[in-house]
Amino acid sequence: MSLPWHPIPGGLTAPTGFLAAGSTAGLKASGKPDLSLLLAPTGAVCAGSFTTNRVRAACVDLCAERLAASGGRARAVLTNSGQANACTGDLGLIDSLRATQATADLLGLAAEEVLICSTGVIGVPIPMQILLAGLDPLVEALSPEGGAAAATAILTTDLIDKQVALEADLGGRRVRLGGMAKGSGMIHPTMATMLGYLSCDAGVPAELWQGMVRRAVDRSFNAITVDGDTSTNDTFLAFAAGEPLSPEHFDALEAGLTAVSQHLARAIARDGEGATCLIETRVEGATDDAGARAIARTICGSSLVKCAVHGRDPNWGRIVAAAGRAGVEFDPEAVALWLGEHQLMAAGQPVSFDRQAASRFMAERAAGAYLSGDTVTIRLVVGDGPGQGRAWGCDLSDQYVRINADYTT
Amino acid sequence: MSLPWHPIPGGLTAPTGFLAAGSTAGLKASGKPDLSLLLAPTGAVCAGSFTTNRVRAACVDLCAERLAASGGRARAVLTNSGQANACTGDLGLIDSLRATQATADLLGLAAEEVLICSTGVIGVPIPMQILLAGLDPLVEALSPEGGAAAATAILTTDLIDKQVALEADLGGRRVRLGGMAKGSGMIHPTMATMLGYLSCDAGVPAELWQGMVRRAVDRSFNAITVDGDTSTNDTFLAFAAGEPLSPEHFDALEAGLTAVSQHLARAIARDGEGATCLIETRVEGATDDAGARAIARTICGSSLVKCAVHGRDPNWGRIVAAAGRAGVEFDPEAVALWLGEHQLMAAGQPVSFDRQAASRFMAERAAGAYLSGDTVTIRLVVGDGPGQGRAWGCDLSDQYVRINADYTT
Repeated sequence: MSLPWHPIPGGLTAPTGFLAAGSTAGLKASGKPDLSLLLAPTGAVCAGSFTTNRVRAACVDLCAERLAASGGRARAVLTNSGQANACTGDLGLIDSLRATQATADLLGLAAEEVLICSTGVIGVPIPMQILLAGLDPLVEALSPEGGAAAATAILTTDLIDKQVALEADLGGRRVRLGGMAKGSGMIHPTMATMLGYLSCDAGVPAELWQGMVRRAVDRSFNAITVDGDTSTNDTFLAFAAGEPLSPEHFDALEAGLTAVSQHLARAIARDGEGATCLIETRVEGATDDAGARAIARTICGSSLVKCAVHGRDPNWGRIVAAAGRAGVEFDPEAVALWLGEHQLMAAGQPVSFDRQAASRFMAERAAGAYLSGDTVTIRLVVGDGPGQGRAWGCDLSDQYVRINADYTT
Repeated sequence: MSLPWHPIPGGLTAPTGFLAAGSTAGLKASGKPDLSLLLAPTGAVCAGSFTTNRVRAACVDLCAERLAASGGRARAVLTNSGQANACTGDLGLIDSLRATQATADLLGLAAEEVLICSTGVIGVPIPMQILLAGLDPLVEALSPEGGAAAATAILTTDLIDKQVALEADLGGRRVRLGGMAKGSGMIHPTMATMLGYLSCDAGVPAELWQGMVRRAVDRSFNAITVDGDTSTNDTFLAFAAGEPLSPEHFDALEAGLTAVSQHLARAIARDGEGATCLIETRVEGATDDAGARAIARTICGSSLVKCAVHGRDPNWGRIVAAAGRAGVEFDPEAVALWLGEHQLMAAGQPVSFDRQAASRFMAERAAGAYLSGDTVTIRLVVGDGPGQGRAWGCDLSDQYVRINADYTT
């Protein structure tokens, strides 16, 4: 965690003033919680980051349009889990409008102040009667302790819920950040969605907040890969509401925002389908940060590297070959590579190392504690430039293939 | 096959004037053939296409430099299989120079007229004494029937050798094209290489030939994907030697060149590790051909699509979501999708189809005859533009993961 921030219990409702709820309306055949609501009662500055997929759900269009029209302000976000409402034609937008209107009516807000995210099966309309009937108890359940219920209700096939909260003393003032996310598990028969939400109880001008969020997303959600596929619904929404923060603390706030985003992003990668460990790649010595991040992302996304980590195989050749195809200039003769503490390459050539020990390192990491010890760390130096960057991924197991090759027929 | 071309038996030595040989020098622990030589006795126009990986083997640098210096002419290419000679530092270039010099001495050529390709384990030097001792019998074995032996000797973990030859009557003149390739199977413990070679017994000016080869490569070797990883050694070399061809037949020649390249590229994709079938994606209606090819490649490269095909799952959502992240503009509402004869989407939304029959179609294709029947065909229409393109890949099986997760320790 970045100083001066320290972790505290809770998630989205740890920051003062935010209310949340999660409930079960019956949208999922499994009977698990499926509706989630976040409310900033006095309104909030809100920055959104959305899927770059050309095929995107109606709810994503609606969020982007409303944030653009309001100059980056919103008061609530409803999330329905079970149907992604993508590839549903005109009906998709109509249903998104109806759901936000009904939510706004219950909250006494204008529909334009309410956003909506959907996750689940694509190509299937939301059962609107079930959703609408579920809104009343959902709104009733809103509370300053509702973060955990909200975090559970956005999940699809995630194995673990994903929440985090940080606190800092910024010039004598207590500021809190909270977050929740869901990952890229697959929904039978089609794909699920990455969703992330962040709350902050300090006020920040909308334009500044948008810049902070954009940079934090680049260093977190845009630096993870599970299988290279992006969804039709991927969305990150960051809300800031509270007394305005003094500008001298903006840098510290951005550091905390980045830390929350990275925590959630790493949790999504760790919970990738069939994964047994998190892979963190740190690249140094590139010409600039963007290049370093691109190399790190390519390494984390390589099927061969992911298989090698799954096999606890210190396969330096695959790592350097993946780096070489990242589309970034570097001098191959300058490459040095470490796996944990084990140096595998120097000056572009393999060095002699203890293969057994390096393999054992990976096996031990994979057996470590969730999101603290279970990370296989790769460090690649590609020159003496100032650019550095990190990316996260997970190993590729035969379990992944079995999950995704199952018949839907 | 493109008219006026028809397939004939043989490979690289089917065209008149080319000699080839394959032999076993002892570079591989397996004792399989490991040295291959192609000779155009009177010299040839030669166009090369090389890996875009920043980390590339010394032999690739040497090929590129010699072709640039000669204005696209060469007389022979030696291929050693077993060691890729990548990440071997200065020694890598020294060994490549020595190998071509020794080959040139035996053939009575200048070293600059001889090219070299290497494939196999990276980071390990070539055992030069073994290679040099193997050159004499290799040169002795050169013959106009040596194409098959050459095609076998370039393989690493490929399951099947890859050869093709075409013949056409171009204005009363018989012209032949031959080709061989090896695929992207993995070499324990690191990665192997895609190599392709083509011969043509008609003369074409170097610059024109380079243009034809570049376009053919874009439509073949650059349109296949096994796992998204590129090697340090990927090389395609195309030789043309013979009486100059009349310019009125250049278009026909390029069609044949493209057909040979596509045959070899499809054979490489089909022989991808753990694959049970070939996937062919045809995209139509894009703004231009490059965009259509990019979409087709992204679909063939999607782990989710590959898993779905492996599971014989007509999962339209994954196909359209992969198309959406190809970085190409199109109207999602215009999308129509077919799997074989089964239409899965129209106007951007799913249509009702017989899931059992679509799944059966994939299962039957996967059980079909090698490189004729065993292709799962995807057709995606993304609008009414003139752009179209094809790409090829293979399914992703748990066998792939097992092959690549094996311990090297």
